[in-house]
Amino acid sequence: MAAHNRFKVVVVTGLPGVGKSTVMKGSIEQVRQEGIQYQVVNYGDVMLNVAKERKLVEHRDGLRKLPAKVQRDVQRMAGKSIAIMAETNPIIVDTHSVIKTPEGFLPGLPKWVLDELQPNVIVLIEADPEEIARRRAKDQTRFRDAESLESIQEHIVASRAAAMAYAALCGATVKIIKNNDGKIDEAIQQMLMALR
Amino acid sequence: MAAHNRFKVVVVTGLPGVGKSTVMKGSIEQVRQEGIQYQVVNYGDVMLNVAKERKLVEHRDGLRKLPAKVQRDVQRMAGKSIAIMAETNPIIVDTHSVIKTPEGFLPGLPKWVLDELQPNVIVLIEADPEEIARRRAKDQTRFRDAESLESIQEHIVASRAAAMAYAALCGATVKIIKNNDGKIDEAIQQMLMALR
Amino acid sequence: MAAHNRFKVVVVTGLPGVGKSTVMKGSIEQVRQEGIQYQVVNYGDVMLNVAKERKLVEHRDGLRKLPAKVQRDVQRMAGKSIAIMAETNPIIVDTHSVIKTPEGFLPGLPKWVLDELQPNVIVLIEADPEEIARRRAKDQTRFRDAESLESIQEHIVASRAAAMAYAALCGATVKIIKNNDGKIDEAIQQMLMALR
Repeated sequence: MAAHNRFKVVVVTGLPGVGKSTVMKGSIEQVRQEGIQYQVVNYGDVMLNVAKERKLVEHRDGLRKLPAKVQRDVQRMAGKSIAIMAETNPIIVDTHSVIKTPEGFLPGLPKWVLDELQPNVIVLIEADPEEIARRRAKDQTRFRDAESLESIQEHIVASRAAAMAYAALCGATVKIIKNNDGKIDEAIQQMLMALR
Repeated sequence: MAAHNRFKVVVVTGLPGVGKSTVMKGSIEQVRQEGIQYQVVNYGDVMLNVAKERKLVEHRDGLRKLPAKVQRDVQRMAGKSIAIMAETNPIIVDTHSVIKTPEGFLPGLPKWVLDELQPNVIVLIEADPEEIARRRAKDQTRFRDAESLESIQEHIVASRAAAMAYAALCGATVKIIKNNDGKIDEAIQQMLMALR
Repeated sequence: MAAHNRFKVVVVTGLPGVGKSTVMKGSIEQVRQEGIQYQVVNYGDVMLNVAKERKLVEHRDGLRKLPAKVQRDVQRMAGKSIAIMAETNPIIVDTHSVIKTPEGFLPGLPKWVLDELQPNVIVLIEADPEEIARRRAKDQTRFRDAESLESIQEHIVASRAAAMAYAALCGATVKIIKNNDGKIDEAIQQMLMALR
């Protein structure tokens, strides 16, 4: 559902601790061997670069201190910047469906981002709440505070619902990939269907 | 929530095997006896006709081979074509909330379709995953490969979330109708509320 | 994510019987003591005022008898009217994520409302279906007909999915607050995070 003369744009999302990097790494290596060279961009990094180029911030912390309207502009321009990259090679966008904040779930791909980015596929990498909690507990450097299973489940449900809303807006498909314990190969196989 | 001078447009969706045709047939016959004559159109058929008229394809298989941008135009024009039919009589649109593809769930009613179609009601005909699996198993001509209950449940959840997103975009109501085993009459009664 | 020079707009939703008023009352009083003076408006009341000013109706019952297109205009103008209030003080909008009707779930914040209202936070006050059913049973003046637990659960799921779709459209955060039995203080604490 993308514009003409453009490579595929695949947005990859997943809750912190779900194993997103592992699934991405394995599948990107596989398609690379098949001759498809994906460029991976982190949405937050692109936003930071856009804001730095426009002398709006010097460091990442500055982003969230920008006025809401400016943040939104930076977010939109990052989408445009990635869409331009997709004229040269296929792109994986590493981001979140929703971001958990004290004020609630913040949508990672609001309408003005989708209008620019026009992704072809939105991937949701999922695992059971228990699995996510266990994986987080093992990685105390990244995850200091434990989150209740109910709260993780809420985050999964909100991520799915948001992804379907994004799809309604831009026509992307939504690919749900289970990265259950001991099933990384199956997860990578599913990811290949999104990337090929 | 439709434009003036227009009859009702009711979109009817449901997973393959949920019994959509049976619920539609029973309720359409009932309202016909009450003097309301619905015209039933299949969204895919209308898309095919639109594409044939424009000499874009000769057969249904050609649709999915069209460039994404052209597919989208055909999809939008089909919506417009149905909206014009609704100036003459009430319309039931037989389609899917989301379509399961190897690249994930494809939205059946993306924004550009809703902008043209402006449906009044979006019906989701549902059943328990177990019931759907059993009904599919009985109909081996339509369903060759069995799908896991978890996968059917994911499809149901994605269909609901997508339907609520469509409603947010166009203001339609979303009517969830359970077509549980042995409860076809209740399902038809619920459908009548959407059609009357 | 609001426009410049505007106070916060917090939309508060919850199923009938979930205890929305109690959570609102406690948290508004708390922030008032901290010097933040929220103005509370009921969306339906604002719609009625808009319609009365334009001589479209005399009483609330008249609203639903207006042609769909006029209802939609009134709904949009109410959003605009509240957005103007937010230039003077922070606003809580008391409304519903989805409204249960015989034709299905009607979205409370369709696109044309969000375009005007541009809320910062959408709060979903929730409780378990069993708790909601018990609270309704105790208040026979407001709730005459009992609703099945499955039906209450469907209403909760539809409300969440709709809220995420609204967020995708306007960039608001979605704050889910559990108002479980005996946990009103926790619910108020969560609400304070949305209001401060």
